Amino acid sequence: MKAEIIAVGTELLLGQVVNTNATFLSEQLADLGMEVYYQTVVGDNRNRLEELLNLADKRSDLIVLCGGLGPTEDDLTKEVVARHVGKSLVQDPKGYQILLHFFENSQRVMTENNLQQALTIQDSITLQNPNGLAVGSLYQGEKSTYLLLPGPPSELKPMFRQNAVPELQKVFPTEEKLYSTVLRFYGIGESQLVTDLADLIDGQTNPTIAPYAKENEVTLRITVKTGDENEAEKLLKELEQKILQRVGEFFYGYGDDNSLAKVVVDLLRAHGKTVTAAESLTAGMFQSTLGSISGVSEVFPGGLVTYSPKLKIALLGVKEETIEKYGVVSEECAKEMAVNSLALGQTDFALSFTGVAGPDELEGQAAGTVWIGLAKRDGQVEARCYHFNRNRQYVQQSAVMKGLDLIRRAILTEK
Amino acid sequence: MKAEIIAVGTELLLGQVVNTNATFLSEQLADLGMEVYYQTVVGDNRNRLEELLNLADKRSDLIVLCGGLGPTEDDLTKEVVARHVGKSLVQDPKGYQILLHFFENSQRVMTENNLQQALTIQDSITLQNPNGLAVGSLYQGEKSTYLLLPGPPSELKPMFRQNAVPELQKVFPTEEKLYSTVLRFYGIGESQLVTDLADLIDGQTNPTIAPYAKENEVTLRITVKTGDENEAEKLLKELEQKILQRVGEFFYGYGDDNSLAKVVVDLLRAHGKTVTAAESLTAGMFQSTLGSISGVSEVFPGGLVTYSPKLKIALLGVKEETIEKYGVVSEECAKEMAVNSLALGQTDFALSFTGVAGPDELEGQAAGTVWIGLAKRDGQVEARCYHFNRNRQYVQQSAVMKGLDLIRRAILTEK
Repeated sequence: MKAEIIAVGTELLLGQVVNTNATFLSEQLADLGMEVYYQTVVGDNRNRLEELLNLADKRSDLIVLCGGLGPTEDDLTKEVVARHVGKSLVQDPKGYQILLHFFENSQRVMTENNLQQALTIQDSITLQNPNGLAVGSLYQGEKSTYLLLPGPPSELKPMFRQNAVPELQKVFPTEEKLYSTVLRFYGIGESQLVTDLADLIDGQTNPTIAPYAKENEVTLRITVKTGDENEAEKLLKELEQKILQRVGEFFYGYGDDNSLAKVVVDLLRAHGKTVTAAESLTAGMFQSTLGSISGVSEVFPGGLVTYSPKLKIALLGVKEETIEKYGVVSEECAKEMAVNSLALGQTDFALSFTGVAGPDELEGQAAGTVWIGLAKRDGQVEARCYHFNRNRQYVQQSAVMKGLDLIRRAILTEK
Repeated sequence: MKAEIIAVGTELLLGQVVNTNATFLSEQLADLGMEVYYQTVVGDNRNRLEELLNLADKRSDLIVLCGGLGPTEDDLTKEVVARHVGKSLVQDPKGYQILLHFFENSQRVMTENNLQQALTIQDSITLQNPNGLAVGSLYQGEKSTYLLLPGPPSELKPMFRQNAVPELQKVFPTEEKLYSTVLRFYGIGESQLVTDLADLIDGQTNPTIAPYAKENEVTLRITVKTGDENEAEKLLKELEQKILQRVGEFFYGYGDDNSLAKVVVDLLRAHGKTVTAAESLTAGMFQSTLGSISGVSEVFPGGLVTYSPKLKIALLGVKEETIEKYGVVSEECAKEMAVNSLALGQTDFALSFTGVAGPDELEGQAAGTVWIGLAKRDGQVEARCYHFNRNRQYVQQSAVMKGLDLIRRAILTEK
């Protein structure tokens, strides 16, 4: 099955936005066994989009369009595709109800043009939008099938995964399917991971191993193509075991919709443990990262953001002498912050973060120098120094990820 | 002048690499006064690339190709373009010398396939590679001009800026350039904004107005094409004033590299004011958003994350009776949190966030219900209720943005 992706939006052609949707969709379509031969970007222009559809009809079974489903005049994808296939646009009753409900709830006036977002192509399957208002459509034409998705990645991704994939599998049933497992690693770089697994990566054609480096973590996607689900499971498990024998130390979890924060919250819940934090250079990022996971209230009561030395003393009770003698970027300060934070939060674990986010240095220490302290209910406390390079945001994020991993390891080794 | 960008590489079609080259080149070409009408990605495949060149010849004056100049068998861009224009490939003497020199210096053996990197299209202008070994080419055909650039962004960008731009300006001399201003808005939706500006958007061709909706904000890019810089400035300023007369209430700042958080930190610094916060449902996200801005230490000492009712009482001193009588999702609780937070942080402003992040409801109130309190040093305190829909992350982000805007308005109206 041949597929192509058409992203519609002048902002892409002006270089204002990176076309990450094409990357996401390419990867997802490959998993469904589709071969993507073209990605194209075209502006918000009726004629050029129409021409492109004429061309795409000749070369692709599936044409995935993203962008241009919104309420403004620029948003013309639905209209152009509908005319191209000789259909009209009709209101989707469910999408319309959601739209009304949204404006009622948010106490905003619904301008007329918003109704456009509830329109779908006649005789198509409407795809609801879990994160927005514009509905998508899947239309099976005589020659090609058209999938229309919204432009914002936060809307496109869940609509594709939840609503488009099941419909696509009906339209394009395949004997052989792709089965895959995603393994997530923290604490090892991509180049090291690839070096450690070089013979496995080079030698394998089915399953294949695809490494992917993200900020502060690496994932490996193992994919097998087969008509037999049991066979798939066996092959994936065998290769996973070989991989984990070598780099299992850095493995923390499975799946695309996962994160180190989620694994930590799940582990805390499973073990009936709680955590708090006192954050200086991370300024609340560790706590809000935990807070992004639903169900966190069971395991996280809150904590402190003590950015200034003054609040470290006033709110957290760090001794003035400690700061005078050792500075805030020190083992002593990190330990006191963690211990006092544990006492205030009445939790099983407390983390502290103190260091130099940058760009400027602090107390003569370079940007990127970070002390992380960990206190436990039994009175144990330790602190270690880390050096994260690059910019302010990277330093803060790296400190948060390291803190999450420290908690993860503390729970797993505690017993 | 019409241009299009063709990125060559199967890794792009598999979703392993994001096509940031297209974004970079689009922006650069716009600055040169070229109109980019298409971006296409095609795999390492002779026939499909050849077909695409036939199509591009018909629609573009300049065809920019990136990727496929390297030493491996997959690297076929030069070969396909040369055959397409009826020329052969010849060795570039300077590129060849650099290649030899590189392998001598690095004491590595030069495999035969590396020579491919020094080949250029006969009768073209060779572009040297400041950061790599593969040379680029600029070939002026009868109908179209072809620019061949390497795939790695670290090679493509300097080659384009240093070596391609001067040559392109000779081939396509223009009097006119593009000048643009970006206006940023918070608190108004994209659909409302374009409704309010409908006649301006429809009526204008030079300057043009391009709206772009991001999570929780909207930007407008005003662009003018002219040969006269003073004229550009005047036209941009005039249109900006017309826009701000209508929707200036929601305008908060200029530029691509800006954010509401940055504007707030800058304003606090300029006015010598400080802020703290007590966060429940946002769990530290407001504080870490401030913390992402460098220089924030002058205006933000820290604050509290009181996720549980227990810590609202123990750390923040909210009265037990308040929570018992009104619940945590209430005006009373939000006000007490703000007032007590101000006292603890000793700041000019204090924000409080308490509400239902979701997905579940709390105290019988729907997910998305958020009270935000604002206390000021002079004793004033107020709290308002907001309803943010969608998912947990959106609710948290929306609350943070609203909090930032409350501070911004408080500073601006303070006199």
